[in-house]
Amino acid sequence: MSYLSIQQLLKTAQIGASVTVKGWVRTKRESKNAVFIALNDGSTINNIQAVAEAGQLPEETLKLITTGACLAVTGQLVESQGAGQAVEVKISDVIIYGPANPDKYPLQPKRHSLEFLREIAHLRPRTNTFSAILRIRHALAFAVHKYFNDNGFFYLNTPIITASDAEGAGEMFRVTTLDATKPPLTEEGKVDYSQDFFGRETNLTVSGQLEGELGAMALGKIYTFGPTFRAENSNTTRHLAEFWMIEPEVAFYELEDNMNLAEDFVKTVIRYALQHCADDLAFLDNRLKEEEKTKKKEEQSELSLLEKLQFVISNEFVRLTYTEAIDILVNSKPAKKGQFQYEVSWGVDLQSEHERFLVEKHFKKPVILTNYPRDIKAFYMKQDVESEENPGQKTVRAMDVLFPGIGEIIGGSQREDDFDKLTARMQEVGIEPEALWWYLDTRRFGSAPHAGFGLGFERLVLFVTGMGNIRDVIPFPRAPKTAEF
Amino acid sequence: MSYLSIQQLLKTAQIGASVTVKGWVRTKRESKNAVFIALNDGSTINNIQAVAEAGQLPEETLKLITTGACLAVTGQLVESQGAGQAVEVKISDVIIYGPANPDKYPLQPKRHSLEFLREIAHLRPRTNTFSAILRIRHALAFAVHKYFNDNGFFYLNTPIITASDAEGAGEMFRVTTLDATKPPLTEEGKVDYSQDFFGRETNLTVSGQLEGELGAMALGKIYTFGPTFRAENSNTTRHLAEFWMIEPEVAFYELEDNMNLAEDFVKTVIRYALQHCADDLAFLDNRLKEEEKTKKKEEQSELSLLEKLQFVISNEFVRLTYTEAIDILVNSKPAKKGQFQYEVSWGVDLQSEHERFLVEKHFKKPVILTNYPRDIKAFYMKQDVESEENPGQKTVRAMDVLFPGIGEIIGGSQREDDFDKLTARMQEVGIEPEALWWYLDTRRFGSAPHAGFGLGFERLVLFVTGMGNIRDVIPFPRAPKTAEF
Repeated sequence: MSYLSIQQLLKTAQIGASVTVKGWVRTKRESKNAVFIALNDGSTINNIQAVAEAGQLPEETLKLITTGACLAVTGQLVESQGAGQAVEVKISDVIIYGPANPDKYPLQPKRHSLEFLREIAHLRPRTNTFSAILRIRHALAFAVHKYFNDNGFFYLNTPIITASDAEGAGEMFRVTTLDATKPPLTEEGKVDYSQDFFGRETNLTVSGQLEGELGAMALGKIYTFGPTFRAENSNTTRHLAEFWMIEPEVAFYELEDNMNLAEDFVKTVIRYALQHCADDLAFLDNRLKEEEKTKKKEEQSELSLLEKLQFVISNEFVRLTYTEAIDILVNSKPAKKGQFQYEVSWGVDLQSEHERFLVEKHFKKPVILTNYPRDIKAFYMKQDVESEENPGQKTVRAMDVLFPGIGEIIGGSQREDDFDKLTARMQEVGIEPEALWWYLDTRRFGSAPHAGFGLGFERLVLFVTGMGNIRDVIPFPRAPKTAEF
Repeated sequence: MSYLSIQQLLKTAQIGASVTVKGWVRTKRESKNAVFIALNDGSTINNIQAVAEAGQLPEETLKLITTGACLAVTGQLVESQGAGQAVEVKISDVIIYGPANPDKYPLQPKRHSLEFLREIAHLRPRTNTFSAILRIRHALAFAVHKYFNDNGFFYLNTPIITASDAEGAGEMFRVTTLDATKPPLTEEGKVDYSQDFFGRETNLTVSGQLEGELGAMALGKIYTFGPTFRAENSNTTRHLAEFWMIEPEVAFYELEDNMNLAEDFVKTVIRYALQHCADDLAFLDNRLKEEEKTKKKEEQSELSLLEKLQFVISNEFVRLTYTEAIDILVNSKPAKKGQFQYEVSWGVDLQSEHERFLVEKHFKKPVILTNYPRDIKAFYMKQDVESEENPGQKTVRAMDVLFPGIGEIIGGSQREDDFDKLTARMQEVGIEPEALWWYLDTRRFGSAPHAGFGLGFERLVLFVTGMGNIRDVIPFPRAPKTAEF
């Protein structure tokens, strides 16, 4: 541990100091008088340049210094003569840890397509783009834990393997150790899950919320942050079969507290990324600007990446009801001109185009929509009391946070804490209350108002990095027919 | 959000202030002149006492204030007249959120067995013991993230669903969406996994290490912290089918760096728990002392829980080789008197009794054993060069950290970074190098010395809380025939 990372070295080392740098060669450039090696060790997007005089290094060493090779370089830290860096290392010694045959190493210093890089996901963290994304992903994950810890929440590890299939949040993966070809069968010819590992049919969780509520009804404030799964056969740029979810749940919070929490939370973690990942974000901001230039004028984004992040943290989120939003949408220009792909009227689930119209065109601010129709939301959401403003329209205390470019980023609600209303609603939508006896116990014993929300972590990383495909913001994406590495 | 948690209130509220407290009734006690209600909201192990004058509360309200009921109490914070607490709330108003029928609520204020509480894992976080464990678990998890973040590591989410079955770390759970009763078959009568969701056979991960190495070979320092799975049919107090693992992996670290990291890491997170969970640890320390009293003298632990934690953070870990440890064990009193259940000689895997003898009797310090026989360790560990001290004995740069009471808590190694040695070893142990082509690419291109280790998070929580059964340190344990909630 007697050497500094490049990040530390660029920050702390003194001109004239003798230093050792270890990392991977990004590029090698030879001039008449010198060899310039750009080294990167993953600690920062910035390379350090190491310089040897022409003829100083043995020919067989020089030959092995190619893009991707791993080296330790020792020398003196000096002011750089060239442009582009303040300091560089004047090489006195080089050790080659591992070469990278230029005829075989796939990451040569040229532009690679994101599609190609997905095929070599085991190597893509060695590129500028993916190392930047992964460092930002780390910073966001840490900011999530820090935010909740600072605010008195306890991290609750809800189960990954679950026997509960009653949530209805999506298609599930089965988890089993039964013989795949000839599973044991019951007399009726069905699979005999009593002989399976857990003695019953089990699946991968689609959400930790129900167990999270158990935690909140005991510890007050909890959050989950773990993998969740959807076995949906959707090959889109927005879906993964395996992704990480953040789900806070808080006793005694009602809908407005929940909105305050969501807004404060998402602003705080984005602000953290802006403060701690300035270099990486500047790189991605620039990357996106270059990409935008290749688009038609009308398809170009109005805001740059950094502007979009500033937009979110510096605006108060507009809060309105679903019913009010429908009014706005129905009377909007695109609706009147038939420019929406999907029609809007009270009762329909909003599409991304509608959400983006509200955020990007109408309010020009992030938006929180509340009090959605009961029939398009989950059974556990608290039912609104019908009121004068809301006659005959059955709504629930749901809230969705809508962001520019991305639409819904957070979905949550106050939960139904009334035992009778909750069980009646379960029966209406076909969920057997007995199957969730343990969930209902929190309404049987010491029930309390409570609320929470869910945030798909990759959606957040997608937003903060400005990437276009969710498979590029998780190290090893899982999707239909995709489980390599 | 206009009320304080009990933890905040006990810390910050001023005598005389008007306060609102929300929480669950732990006990209610009535005297001739007053009613005393102990409320807890999960934010701390400490209850707050709320006091009403006799006759002040309507009879129907008083009847509903029973153990487990959820209340909001408003009143003045006053100095307590009674012993046991400094302040109490003089009730002016009570709202009952949810009652808890005393004839049905299972958590009445009496001693419950841990076995019984496991059956109501959805309610046990409402007990002192489990809320303390879960708060400590949270603090340890946060300390883990903080430690790595402070030291320049990046959190890497390695995949949960994996097609790699070559690690050999244990039995695996299959993940599938194929029809369970009649899966599609190939012409040879085998299950046709090409029709499964991922187009191949997939399992739940047993370790993120191999993917972690990919991260370290690009980002330098990474760590994983996520769920891992073992489909082993072991119904013990030490095994779970689903547990959380922490796996740092560091480029350019060799065996000694790895030992320094492991020692510093585990001391830092335990120190964090001591600093941030003093009340909860004092409660569990006391709980354990009571439990010890019921044991025979010779079975009682020499150290209390808090002493054991201090023992770990205040001692330098003793470092010696496996070969040296075998010498000590072979020449030890218990070996000579035949008191070990398992015999020791060079080449055997050490049992918990041997590890504990070294830690608790011989050195009286935590121990790191290194350079284990190659044949009892994993294929990816770096092979030692045979030397004069080590003639003819093939060893690898493994390291295990041994703790009092628990034996091995951390296992790790420097990794084999030589492509030829690694592939030769894979073939020796029957792993097809092609199956891990992506793993081997890190040795093909820019290979470097690197090292890492794994720590089962529940083992750590078990150690810090002093609990005896690993099912009691995770909210919803998964084990053979156990997947409720």
